[in-house]
Amino acid sequence: MEVRNSFTVAVDAMGGDFAPREIVQGAICAAQQNGYKILLVGDETAIKVELNNYEASKLDITVVASEGVIEETDNPIRAIKEKPYASVVQAARLVKAGDAHAFVTMGSTGAAMAAATLEMGLLDNIDRPAIGGPLFGRLSRTVLMDLGSNVDCRPSRLLGFAALGVAFARVIQGVENPRVGILSVGSEEGKGNRQTKEAYPLFKESSLNFIGNVEGMDILLDKADVVVCDGFVGNILMKYTEGLGMALLKHIPDLLGASLPAEVSGQISKKLVEMTSPAEVGGGGPLFGINGTAIVGHGRANAENVAQAIIMAENVVKVGLIEAMSKELAALNQSEQG
Amino acid sequence: MEVRNSFTVAVDAMGGDFAPREIVQGAICAAQQNGYKILLVGDETAIKVELNNYEASKLDITVVASEGVIEETDNPIRAIKEKPYASVVQAARLVKAGDAHAFVTMGSTGAAMAAATLEMGLLDNIDRPAIGGPLFGRLSRTVLMDLGSNVDCRPSRLLGFAALGVAFARVIQGVENPRVGILSVGSEEGKGNRQTKEAYPLFKESSLNFIGNVEGMDILLDKADVVVCDGFVGNILMKYTEGLGMALLKHIPDLLGASLPAEVSGQISKKLVEMTSPAEVGGGGPLFGINGTAIVGHGRANAENVAQAIIMAENVVKVGLIEAMSKELAALNQSEQG
Repeated sequence: MEVRNSFTVAVDAMGGDFAPREIVQGAICAAQQNGYKILLVGDETAIKVELNNYEASKLDITVVASEGVIEETDNPIRAIKEKPYASVVQAARLVKAGDAHAFVTMGSTGAAMAAATLEMGLLDNIDRPAIGGPLFGRLSRTVLMDLGSNVDCRPSRLLGFAALGVAFARVIQGVENPRVGILSVGSEEGKGNRQTKEAYPLFKESSLNFIGNVEGMDILLDKADVVVCDGFVGNILMKYTEGLGMALLKHIPDLLGASLPAEVSGQISKKLVEMTSPAEVGGGGPLFGINGTAIVGHGRANAENVAQAIIMAENVVKVGLIEAMSKELAALNQSEQG
Repeated sequence: MEVRNSFTVAVDAMGGDFAPREIVQGAICAAQQNGYKILLVGDETAIKVELNNYEASKLDITVVASEGVIEETDNPIRAIKEKPYASVVQAARLVKAGDAHAFVTMGSTGAAMAAATLEMGLLDNIDRPAIGGPLFGRLSRTVLMDLGSNVDCRPSRLLGFAALGVAFARVIQGVENPRVGILSVGSEEGKGNRQTKEAYPLFKESSLNFIGNVEGMDILLDKADVVVCDGFVGNILMKYTEGLGMALLKHIPDLLGASLPAEVSGQISKKLVEMTSPAEVGGGGPLFGINGTAIVGHGRANAENVAQAIIMAENVVKVGLIEAMSKELAALNQSEQG
């Protein structure tokens, strides 16, 4: 798309548990700090009530009206048909029309994927968007994908995930030649379930820097830069990690209590919980495989997380993540033909 | 089987990274503390060299000769055919013959399963043994199964895992009416992959105390007593948990360093690693679905872990785990016919 002036982002003001309050506050914060042009998409009246709480007249913030919100509990595909002017759909439409460089939402991931797919389209060789990223921000930067959008995958689809993850590791994390592993139950080629066994030779013959199967522990031990699994396994691992933070918060004071003052063990639990929280990874992550930039954050996001997600959107555009993904996908294809 | 006198256990003296040294020492320790009769199965000469290091003449320890060891890298089925008198096979044979109440090994889990299946047989309605237990000894006692022996599962097989897990929760953990969940990517009936979607109605119609789908975080948050998944997912989760301990050991001092003295953060890492270590859950776990008691411990087990595993074997026999498993499996079947 043509870059008209400064970075312009469409923000779904209605998505997320604390919308529109925290979304509007986060957008104002990002506009103040970085001079972004922000299109706040949603219910005009509700957004304006929020905007009136701030000294926002000097900021480049425009309200774009939409009708309806797609809820976490809605079926995304059906909801988009029933509410074609819902906030997240309008936000995606603004990117497609060239009026924004990216959109950001804290609403339903399924709705964001459906809206982005419908309005912005998919990259070549991708038939469904994916989600990916490091599970433990500070413990390991290994990118795991898919984290939940593709629960039953053909082995060949894992190859596409790998290309998307490699692009992310390359341009977002600065890894020169990302090592790719298939998540399985043993490192030898013959180990795994039907899906991973069939995927193995496809990876071996591809242009990827494939290091073979990796196991559960390897996700945290820097054995590979990109680890590929289907969305069923990835989503369970992601939520297990989240649960770990909650369980530690509940039990660490008891477990450490005998040897440490309550205050110190409280601090430690807090650190451990932070490590497993979604905010740790910058407020949100890009949808992988969309022909354009869409950032989806956690439903529980506060204003700070929203601002972080908007900053991430600019970074994703600036480093050319989508172009890098296209390139990696094309390279896959060439090696198949070669 | 008939209980002839005190508890008698066949111990595979050749299995595990530190065999026979740590195995023999652990067996001596268990015999001293609990008066068990121990059959040490393995290379006679090597075992006797170890026994000579101890004052063992008053203990009821007998060496049973075997030929060969099945290694971690061997294909279990093939290895058992090629080495029919290997230590783990002989140990299983002693249980079958009524010469021991249980066997214990720190060797290959696959070999233990193959030997136990071949020599001791499977319970009715089970066509392959399974592995199960809590992932985080002290954070949560939820029993997860299968942890790795069944990577591609028909949905109906998950039902058998559930019955085995329920028996474990009932008689080992003392849970009166264990709640059973299917591990999936959403709590609603329609959420999941093909396998869990097909399993859901089978669970709903069964006699199990089925609470529906559970998600990754729920494993650690006491939402269910027994959580069922296939061995691919379970094994990845188990190893991820193990990797977490290793990663925390590596990074916690850095992460906490600024706010805590090195000594304190070192203690904390140690505690966290203990929580994820296999020793935490008693040195080993029973094979589920075998018609008899077989305890498999971690390859890295030391003497203390071996002693714990032997004590666990006695407990499993004493509380009647195998009988409880048979009963739960039969109840499943009756509800199918009813």
